[in-house]
Amino acid sequence: MDIAALRSAHPDHWKKATAIRTLTLDAVAAANSGHSGMPMGMADVATVLFQNHLKFDPKSPAWPDRDRFILSAGHGSMLLYALMYLTGYEDITLQQIKDFRQWGAKTAGHPEYGHARGIETTTGPLGQGIANSVGFAIAEEIQRAHWGAKIVDHHTYVIAGDGCLMEGVSQEAIGLAGMQKLGHLVVFWDNNNITIDGTVDIADITDQPARFAASGWHVQEIDGHDPVAIDAAIVAAKADPRPSMIACKTHIALGHAAQDTSKGHGALTNADQLAAAKTAYGAPMGAFEVADDVLDAWKAIGARGAATRAAWDARFAALSAARQAEFTRAYAGDAPKKLSATIRALKKQISESAPSVATRKSSEMTLEVINPIMPETIGGSADLTGSNNTKTGDLGVFHPDTRKGRYIYYGIREHGMAAAMNGMALHGGARAYGGTFMCFTDYARGAMRLSALMGVPVTYVMTHDSIGLGEDGPTHQPIEHLAMLRATPNMHVFRPADTIETAEAWEIALTSKTTPSVLALSRQNLPTVRKTHTNKNLTAQGGYVLTDADGKRQAIIMATGSEVEIALAARDLLQAQGIGTRVVSMPCWELFEEQDASYRRRVLPAGPVRVAVEAGIRFGWDRWLFGEGGKREKSGFVGMHGFGASAPAERLYAEFGITAQGVADKVKSLIK
Amino acid sequence: MDIAALRSAHPDHWKKATAIRTLTLDAVAAANSGHSGMPMGMADVATVLFQNHLKFDPKSPAWPDRDRFILSAGHGSMLLYALMYLTGYEDITLQQIKDFRQWGAKTAGHPEYGHARGIETTTGPLGQGIANSVGFAIAEEIQRAHWGAKIVDHHTYVIAGDGCLMEGVSQEAIGLAGMQKLGHLVVFWDNNNITIDGTVDIADITDQPARFAASGWHVQEIDGHDPVAIDAAIVAAKADPRPSMIACKTHIALGHAAQDTSKGHGALTNADQLAAAKTAYGAPMGAFEVADDVLDAWKAIGARGAATRAAWDARFAALSAARQAEFTRAYAGDAPKKLSATIRALKKQISESAPSVATRKSSEMTLEVINPIMPETIGGSADLTGSNNTKTGDLGVFHPDTRKGRYIYYGIREHGMAAAMNGMALHGGARAYGGTFMCFTDYARGAMRLSALMGVPVTYVMTHDSIGLGEDGPTHQPIEHLAMLRATPNMHVFRPADTIETAEAWEIALTSKTTPSVLALSRQNLPTVRKTHTNKNLTAQGGYVLTDADGKRQAIIMATGSEVEIALAARDLLQAQGIGTRVVSMPCWELFEEQDASYRRRVLPAGPVRVAVEAGIRFGWDRWLFGEGGKREKSGFVGMHGFGASAPAERLYAEFGITAQGVADKVKSLIK
Repeated sequence: MDIAALRSAHPDHWKKATAIRTLTLDAVAAANSGHSGMPMGMADVATVLFQNHLKFDPKSPAWPDRDRFILSAGHGSMLLYALMYLTGYEDITLQQIKDFRQWGAKTAGHPEYGHARGIETTTGPLGQGIANSVGFAIAEEIQRAHWGAKIVDHHTYVIAGDGCLMEGVSQEAIGLAGMQKLGHLVVFWDNNNITIDGTVDIADITDQPARFAASGWHVQEIDGHDPVAIDAAIVAAKADPRPSMIACKTHIALGHAAQDTSKGHGALTNADQLAAAKTAYGAPMGAFEVADDVLDAWKAIGARGAATRAAWDARFAALSAARQAEFTRAYAGDAPKKLSATIRALKKQISESAPSVATRKSSEMTLEVINPIMPETIGGSADLTGSNNTKTGDLGVFHPDTRKGRYIYYGIREHGMAAAMNGMALHGGARAYGGTFMCFTDYARGAMRLSALMGVPVTYVMTHDSIGLGEDGPTHQPIEHLAMLRATPNMHVFRPADTIETAEAWEIALTSKTTPSVLALSRQNLPTVRKTHTNKNLTAQGGYVLTDADGKRQAIIMATGSEVEIALAARDLLQAQGIGTRVVSMPCWELFEEQDASYRRRVLPAGPVRVAVEAGIRFGWDRWLFGEGGKREKSGFVGMHGFGASAPAERLYAEFGITAQGVADKVKSLIK
Repeated sequence: MDIAALRSAHPDHWKKATAIRTLTLDAVAAANSGHSGMPMGMADVATVLFQNHLKFDPKSPAWPDRDRFILSAGHGSMLLYALMYLTGYEDITLQQIKDFRQWGAKTAGHPEYGHARGIETTTGPLGQGIANSVGFAIAEEIQRAHWGAKIVDHHTYVIAGDGCLMEGVSQEAIGLAGMQKLGHLVVFWDNNNITIDGTVDIADITDQPARFAASGWHVQEIDGHDPVAIDAAIVAAKADPRPSMIACKTHIALGHAAQDTSKGHGALTNADQLAAAKTAYGAPMGAFEVADDVLDAWKAIGARGAATRAAWDARFAALSAARQAEFTRAYAGDAPKKLSATIRALKKQISESAPSVATRKSSEMTLEVINPIMPETIGGSADLTGSNNTKTGDLGVFHPDTRKGRYIYYGIREHGMAAAMNGMALHGGARAYGGTFMCFTDYARGAMRLSALMGVPVTYVMTHDSIGLGEDGPTHQPIEHLAMLRATPNMHVFRPADTIETAEAWEIALTSKTTPSVLALSRQNLPTVRKTHTNKNLTAQGGYVLTDADGKRQAIIMATGSEVEIALAARDLLQAQGIGTRVVSMPCWELFEEQDASYRRRVLPAGPVRVAVEAGIRFGWDRWLFGEGGKREKSGFVGMHGFGASAPAERLYAEFGITAQGVADKVKSLIK
């Protein structure tokens, strides 16, 4: 690469881009770890984007109508941190750059949402950023349709690498974005032909522009180091009604001895090579130094958006007070005041009519009353709409011709759906929920973990939550999935027993601000077990006494979801034999864990034998069986011990011994 | 659709294909569940394939050189069952067809590997079959190079639907197959334009032929109901050196009232419509009836391969006895006899030299002695070869120009890698292992669960198994992943403490026939803790006393992997204060669970306080802390309570309190 030619062709541009490169080299060298090459390769693209196009105001990183910049190739985090420092984001100081990858720094190895205002999403697990961006762009389209372009009219820009594009989730994102004609989405592909193991062609020969074009994208190919070409491509991308992919031919670790090599992907820490690169750049500065004129030029870029934002503020202020309040409420993630009363009214009606319905249907009944009062909800399903019961009458379908629609047909794309939901939540002003069969949390897992890690309150509607799914068999029957989800930090796993608990779980999910929720819902009909109305949300306690013992309390049966019915029937059998039995419903372990110890002790007192019943694996139940005053010798579990089978659901429950008689027998065997 | 025209154009073909359609309709109607439309749409393709091309012998379903037929769209299981019944597979009788989806039947809702000989893989979770098929085809290429085309020369045929192609894992498979020029792989796309939620275009507008072509595939588009076109396309596909995709335009539920609708995807059980369809087909037979001449024609198709197989038997018999034995051993999944001695020799050498190395390096050291004596191993990594330490000097790289190479550069495709590994294991004669960062089990999870469900002994080399990964931060640090994997039935999760345990774990993995293994390996160096050589594989016991207490045994510290070193250091601190402390290494919970109770009691006797230390979440540990003679009040856990952070590893261990002092303090707090 002829660095001198690049320098002389566009000297002002070059100096600004160089600041990104030298800060990257210095920060990685100081940390003695990190990824130098990607920021060095994409510095030109980022400089042109931030200088000429990105609508942003570092003084107001939460400005709702800002453009979003998503670093899908999150290992190149120093690109983002350098840009944020140079343009004046308050949270990313020079000291933060110096503390790159150190304990307590906002400048983590990969960009972490919540560490610094201005980081739009957590990236690093490859493909997540580009898949998030589809959600960002959908939220923008819906809100633009709803609020008008004076209030919502911004772009989502993504930098993705070869890793992002090889990950399968990228195909799900590309397919969905192409069909939905998300014209405000622009993806820059860092086409540097290098991965960790070598050149890309050792694992892939995909013609990426052709692949994107096949899914309906506008595609351009440019020299990623030519600022004029970069600018022209962004202009064209913005003008095209399709989502745009700009293939940027770049050199990883541009100008460094490791340029164009796999070594260049990683941490370039050799001092001599670092100095040589800086000299070649024409910036032989000390560590972390940027020339004043370059700093000034970058600050000017950072200041560019203030007027635009002020104009937006004025337009927003011209909205009616009610509209302003509605917008602000949605962006604050506050539920509408009437949500609570609405849920209570539903609960009251249900406790009286006591229907026998599947909890997936209960969820739909709840959504039917929620969606009309929460215009920020965006629902969807990965091609199981009728099975997940996720679509309500008022939502409308989101489609290129119907941008106000709030229901997404995600296609058979569980992972892409979950990642898009994260993007919608991160965009702001949106509450996303999406459904699939619970077993396919396996497919969505990569993005679900990021929901928890980032603390975004999306809701996963996971139906067909056990062998109750029946004939489709073991590939479709979750067994270990409740354990997997419960093991994940910062995730509320709800397994409601009836419509009342389902409505309560939804209320908690929709008022959560920092925790995602999973609703594990039955395929099969379940009776209403909460026949006495309570205004109080009992599910918020995580576990509670559903039915207490008559007479001396000899046994406690703990159950969740579809097995609460079985627990109650077992109690009937036991009470008929004079064995006083309490039934505890435990719809959400995490919330029960958060209750104070005295409450937990009241629900699970020491003394009685304990049996848990759940049509999943035991893993994790020992916490409640042996712990919390329980005794090993006085406790038992009725559930699954391996994978399921293909047969009608009733047969499976009988064959696997998950029956009232089985539970009663287990209790009696422990009492004797 | 003009059914009469189809009937008259190719009457003999039509009758054979009709048998598939009517058996499907009858079986689904009898089960009152299932998926009718796909088998009815693809019956013509399957008939031509089985009649004219597929090399198979129902009397010898395990014939190594058979063509493989993979029903990636597994919900269309009746297509496979009908073909197997009609061509004479012993396990799929007419009674099995009648028992479709019933308890104990071999004809599960989705095809289940192991239920009937002739089912090549378990499908249903969409995209898995096509991703498996890449592994089948790679195994065939390697073995053809190794054994010659006289012994190994067969094709892998796949039927994939829109669901398979929308799942991201399909892109990973398509990309890998295209780059690898897997010319013996032929994928039929059931292009019926229908998904559960509606026509495909509500979620996808991808030009699938263009997408495949972009990744280097040979592509054809045909009328999927025209037997002449189908045959010509298969001929052309076999002649082309690239993998082939044949887009078959079909009508879902052909000839039924539900044709071309989403309803047609599911269970078509209406008796009148069923009868009308049969009449239209010209086959107004009773339930499960097939005309004798049609049955005979199908039996003839089933008999077609016997001579080919006999010829193969003769060629195989002409190999030297040693070559035959080697082939047979590999296909039986037996490890070579010298594996045990090889592992023992390595252990002896290591226990003497006692190196301090990361267990990922230990794994490489083990593979260096294993790969040369096990030519059936196929290694690889999802673009982390140098980090996963999966490549040994002798393997060679598998590439279109070097087909004997046994190392796969999978690219950034964890899910595709795992699914391909399943395919290799299912193909036979191959033992697959593959690496990524342990955190990205999240991405591979869909295929990993199927390894366990199918019981295929692949090995997942999951390195960087804790916060010991350091600066890359929480997105890359597994916290809940050990719990998730341990919760999965039929999966051995090994977390070895040093090179000895790593070698032992590999020995178990490589001798397993029905259980996949996960090796959770450290990034950071660990001392050799097993300094006294034992011939016996102690890891096979799951847990064992590594160092016993000096003096009165007051405490037991349980640990795995990198925390065994910490446990031993804590023991030193405690013993120095006169507190007799046993350290139990627990490299594999599942194997420890399988030991008899008396052994477990000897390792974990009641009485002493118990502390477990593991740099993961507590979830699951209560089994060993409270259970097995433990007491709640006398047990504690030192580990993670949430997500990790970005910083050097040592700092993270200190900040999260996972230190010898922390463990010793916990023990003392419990003893007092």
